[in-house]
Amino acid sequence: MVAPTGVICVGLGPGDPELMSVKADRLVRQARHVAFFRKPGRPGKARQAVQGLLADDVVEYAMEYPVTTELPVDSEAYVQQLSRFYDQWCERLAELARQTQVVVLCEGDPFLYGSFMHLYTRLQARGDVPVDVVPGIPGMVGCWHATGTPITWGDDVLSVMTGTLSEDELVRRMQTADALVIMKVGRNLPRIRRALQRCGRTEAAWLVENGTTAQQQVQRLQDVGDAACPYFAIVLVHGQGRRPEAAW
Amino acid sequence: MVAPTGVICVGLGPGDPELMSVKADRLVRQARHVAFFRKPGRPGKARQAVQGLLADDVVEYAMEYPVTTELPVDSEAYVQQLSRFYDQWCERLAELARQTQVVVLCEGDPFLYGSFMHLYTRLQARGDVPVDVVPGIPGMVGCWHATGTPITWGDDVLSVMTGTLSEDELVRRMQTADALVIMKVGRNLPRIRRALQRCGRTEAAWLVENGTTAQQQVQRLQDVGDAACPYFAIVLVHGQGRRPEAAW
Ligand SMILES: C[S@@+](CC[C@H](N)C(=O)[O-])C[C@H]1O[C@@H](n2cnc3c(N)ncnc32)[C@H](O)[C@@H]1O
Ligand SMILES: C[S@@+](CC[C@H](N)C(=O)[O-])C[C@H]1O[C@@H](n2cnc3c(N)ncnc32)[C@H](O)[C@@H]1O
Repeated sequence: MVAPTGVICVGLGPGDPELMSVKADRLVRQARHVAFFRKPGRPGKARQAVQGLLADDVVEYAMEYPVTTELPVDSEAYVQQLSRFYDQWCERLAELARQTQVVVLCEGDPFLYGSFMHLYTRLQARGDVPVDVVPGIPGMVGCWHATGTPITWGDDVLSVMTGTLSEDELVRRMQTADALVIMKVGRNLPRIRRALQRCGRTEAAWLVENGTTAQQQVQRLQDVGDAACPYFAIVLVHGQGRRPEAAW
Repeated sequence: MVAPTGVICVGLGPGDPELMSVKADRLVRQARHVAFFRKPGRPGKARQAVQGLLADDVVEYAMEYPVTTELPVDSEAYVQQLSRFYDQWCERLAELARQTQVVVLCEGDPFLYGSFMHLYTRLQARGDVPVDVVPGIPGMVGCWHATGTPITWGDDVLSVMTGTLSEDELVRRMQTADALVIMKVGRNLPRIRRALQRCGRTEAAWLVENGTTAQQQVQRLQDVGDAACPYFAIVLVHGQGRRPEAAW
């Protein structure tokens, strides 16, 4: 048997290793080379999720984001830095992937707001290395299960958005949704809260931090202050749609 | 060791058995009693997804929906029939689950428009049997992977809706979304298509039938007629949001 080559990105699911897919679990355990994104100085959420599953002699590639706090995210300088960062890692992984298989670890599902997407489009554009992606359970799915309550019933519309939107945009998008998921919370929590208030939906909102992991926290949003909310958190509002026990 | 009792609903993911979670895979293989929904006279999508994984001597409970075509879905008679159906199966599974573990099979993620939710609320209301739910990869995630293209970038808003909404409602909800997922397609395809047309989004739309299964079909919506679209299909439009290669 010829050893596989190429880049394969593996969706790890919300955090609990038991919620990885059978395919992801096998790929992670067999991996000889793993790459993952992280903020400088942090262990990295994706890397943490596979703790204990990796082979002892696996080679690790920590792809550290260029420092992201001193530049505004919509500045040209920031965009250029990030673009160069993805270009360089694309080059490096492609090089490696010509001889061996590189497993890229990704939280949740790689195609839902995932950083790997930026490598994916670049690797596809090169066209000289096989690229594959394994779906995963998105973090939000783990978070709505953490609340113990279904997210959508009947004709409910679920809208998924990021806390990086402006307050007015958040309100505009929330108004046509029944169920809500707001990702990338962290420092955006005060703005998200104001938007929910303007839509009259604060009482029904939940904050889930680190869903399905040992650090999981599930709280009603109105019981939580704005300080110290982690980035790895989701605000959600459940749909209340049509169901057969409703009295019509 | 005491044998487990209670009802546990297992999300099976989009269809490919390799995409079941490690936990779901184990529970399905070990199951002595499995229950699943199906339309009368059909094998049932959830049951099909575990073909080859179940023990030879497993006991199967096919929960057949009361015939659903002769009554309008919003009629009182239909709602009552369905309600009675869920009441009866709740009773039967609860009875059984006092002595043994019953594994309920569910496509995708059980808490996203899943039929099990109606048993879940009833079982919780009884309070006399343990009930547990295992998250799964939603069908839509398998479907966007089938297109080979990420669904959301940057600040994109993703809205998930069902083709059962009226044309005007579909349009209203589509207008504040960047990426779109429309579930429960089947006979609703003509209406979904008209709504997309009114939003100028037909050219960008894809139709994915039976995503990640051996019957998978991925087509541009404009290349497909309205006839014979299966219920187990999703229409989707990818987001085009902010990404660092964009020239600002
Ligand atoms: C860059 S996005 C990546 C999303 C990922 N691809 C997914 O499918 O969940 C990062 C955001 O995911 C959310 N997230 C992912 N997993 C989570 C979890 N287990 N608990 C809470 N939030 C989570 C947080 O909102 C975080 O800000
Ligand atoms: C009653 S809903 C159940 C959804 C399920 N709980 C989930 O998480 O995907 C049934 C709808 O799911 C969608 N669906 C689920 N899996 C699918 C797949 N693999 N391919 C296409 N459509 C799928 C179809 O739109 C179908 O009409």
